[in-house]
Amino acid sequence: MGNRPPLAMRGGMLNPVPDKRFSARLAEYQARVEAALDRCLPAATEKPESLNEAVRYSVFGGGKRVRPVLVYAGGEAFNAEPAALDGCACAVEMIHTYSLIHDDLPAMDDDDLRRGRPTCHKAYNDATAILAGDALQALAFQVLVEDPGITVPAAQRLKMVDTLALAAGPGGMTGGQAIDLEAEDKKLGLDELQTMHSRKTGALIRASVELGALCSGTVDEQQFQSVSRYADCIGLAFQIHDDVLDIESDTETLGKPQGSDLERNKSTYPNLLGMEGAKQAARDMLEQALEHLSDFDEKADMLRQIALFIVNRNS
Amino acid sequence: MGNRPPLAMRGGMLNPVPDKRFSARLAEYQARVEAALDRCLPAATEKPESLNEAVRYSVFGGGKRVRPVLVYAGGEAFNAEPAALDGCACAVEMIHTYSLIHDDLPAMDDDDLRRGRPTCHKAYNDATAILAGDALQALAFQVLVEDPGITVPAAQRLKMVDTLALAAGPGGMTGGQAIDLEAEDKKLGLDELQTMHSRKTGALIRASVELGALCSGTVDEQQFQSVSRYADCIGLAFQIHDDVLDIESDTETLGKPQGSDLERNKSTYPNLLGMEGAKQAARDMLEQALEHLSDFDEKADMLRQIALFIVNRNS
Repeated sequence: MGNRPPLAMRGGMLNPVPDKRFSARLAEYQARVEAALDRCLPAATEKPESLNEAVRYSVFGGGKRVRPVLVYAGGEAFNAEPAALDGCACAVEMIHTYSLIHDDLPAMDDDDLRRGRPTCHKAYNDATAILAGDALQALAFQVLVEDPGITVPAAQRLKMVDTLALAAGPGGMTGGQAIDLEAEDKKLGLDELQTMHSRKTGALIRASVELGALCSGTVDEQQFQSVSRYADCIGLAFQIHDDVLDIESDTETLGKPQGSDLERNKSTYPNLLGMEGAKQAARDMLEQALEHLSDFDEKADMLRQIALFIVNRNS
Repeated sequence: MGNRPPLAMRGGMLNPVPDKRFSARLAEYQARVEAALDRCLPAATEKPESLNEAVRYSVFGGGKRVRPVLVYAGGEAFNAEPAALDGCACAVEMIHTYSLIHDDLPAMDDDDLRRGRPTCHKAYNDATAILAGDALQALAFQVLVEDPGITVPAAQRLKMVDTLALAAGPGGMTGGQAIDLEAEDKKLGLDELQTMHSRKTGALIRASVELGALCSGTVDEQQFQSVSRYADCIGLAFQIHDDVLDIESDTETLGKPQGSDLERNKSTYPNLLGMEGAKQAARDMLEQALEHLSDFDEKADMLRQIALFIVNRNS
C-alpha cells in the first residue's frame, strides 16, 4: 500500500475504458442491492397498497444503482464485507429515488418520463408521488438503524445517520435543488454551478462512499478523507458528463427527452465551457479522483473503475 | 408511586378543565422549544435563502407545539432534564411541520390558510414548499444525532432515530395519509377511520411521548408501555376533538376554513357517531389515557394535564 502506482498512472496514460471484470462486478453489486431493497421495502400488498406500490414502482425502475455500487466499492476499499454494506446501499438508493420522484413533479421539473417509463406521478398521481418520496426518506433512516447486517458499534452507526441526514438536508441535496430553482432563467457562473452540483448530486455521492467506509470496523481518518475527496471529484465528473449526455445522447438511450436541460435554459457545463471544454473538465476530475486513491492498494480498484465508468457511460 | 389515585379519580369525577399552573408550564415548554428550534434551524440568511426562509416561515407559524410539549412531559415522567429533551422536541416538530407543508399542497389538501396565515406554497411556491418539507425531514434526523443536550448512550439514541423513522414512514404518518387519500369519497367504517388516524396523527404523537421517555437514562419497560398506550389514547382523542372543532368552531378561531372536512365529504367521527357520540368518545379516550398513567406519581401530572387540554382546546 502506498508504493503501488495508481491505476491512472500505470502504462503512462489514463485507460479511458473500464475493464471487463468490472462489468461483472458491477452487475453483481447491482443484483445485490436489488435483492436487499426487495427485502427491506414494504410489500406492495401491504396497506396502504397505493403508497407501497408507488414506492416499489419507483425504486425498481431500472436505475443504474450508481450510489449503492459506490457504497459497496467504498466498503471494499476499507475491507468491509458486502453483507455489512447492504443497509447503507439501500439507504442511499432510497434517498436518491425519493429525490427523483419529487424532482419529476409538475411543480418541479414536470417530467413525464424517467428511465423510459412514466414518472411516479404519471403512473399514480401527484399526491401519491409526494407521499412515496416522503415515505422513502423515512425508510432510508429506518434501514440504517435496523439493518441486521451492519456490525459496527452504535456510535459509528449514529455517524452513518448523521452522514445521510447532512447529505439529504438543506446543506446538501435539498439545498442544491433550491439553488437550482433559484437559478432558472438566470446565468450561473462556473463557481456557482459547481456549488449547486456539489450539493444537489455531489453530497449524496460523497455520502455513499463515506457510508461504505463507515461500515468497516476500523476507519483510518486520513484514508477516509481521501475517499471523500475522490467522491467529490467523481460527483462533479458525473454531473459534467450528465450535461454532455443531455446534448449528445438521444432520447431512447437517455430514457428522458434529449436536450431537456437546454430547453429550460439551464446553466450547464457545455454552455459555460463549450462541449470540448466540458469533456476535458470531466477528464480532469477523473484524473484528480484517481489521484486521491493513490495511497490505496488494489482494494480500491472498484472505486477506480467506477470513476472510469462515470465518464464513459452513454446514459 | 402506584398507591396514589390517578388524577381522573381524585374527587370522584373527571376534572374537565386543566388547572391554571398548567397554562404556565405549557407556555414555558412552548417558549423552550421555540428557542431550541431557532438554534438548530439554518439561518434565513444562509444560502439557499429561499429554502431556509420557507422552512422558518413554516416552523415559526404559531403552532401549539403539542408534540414538543409531549416530549417534555413524557421526559418529565421519567425524570429527564429539559435540556436533554430539546433535541427530540425539535425533531418531532420538524416532522410535524413538514407533514403540514406537504399536506397543504395543491396536489394534496390544497389549503391556502394554515394557522391563519398563507400556507408555505402560497407564501413561496409549490416547488419550494416541497423542498422545505423534504429538508425538514432530514433536519429532524440530524438533530436527533447531533443535539449536544441528549445524554443517553449511543444505542438508546439509535432507538430514538428508529422511533422517529417508524412514526414518519409508511407504517406511520405517510401511510396514514395515503389511507386518507384512498378513502376520499369513500365511506370508512369506525375501525378503518381509527386505523387511518392512528397512523396519520397517532404515530407521531406516540413517538413524541416515547422519545421523551427515551431521553431518560433508565426507562422501565412496563412504564414505557404505559405511556405509549396513554399516547395512543390522547392521539385518538385529539383527532376526534379535531373533527368536532371542524364543525363547531369558526374559521377565525381555527385558522383554516371551518367545515372544510365536511365539504370534502370526508369520513369523520361526528358523521359516524353523531356529534354527542363523538364528544363522548373523546371523553372515553381521555379517561382511558389517564388510566394508563395510574402507576405514575405526580411527575406524570403534565401528561395528565395535556390529556385534559387536548379535549378542551377550542382551536
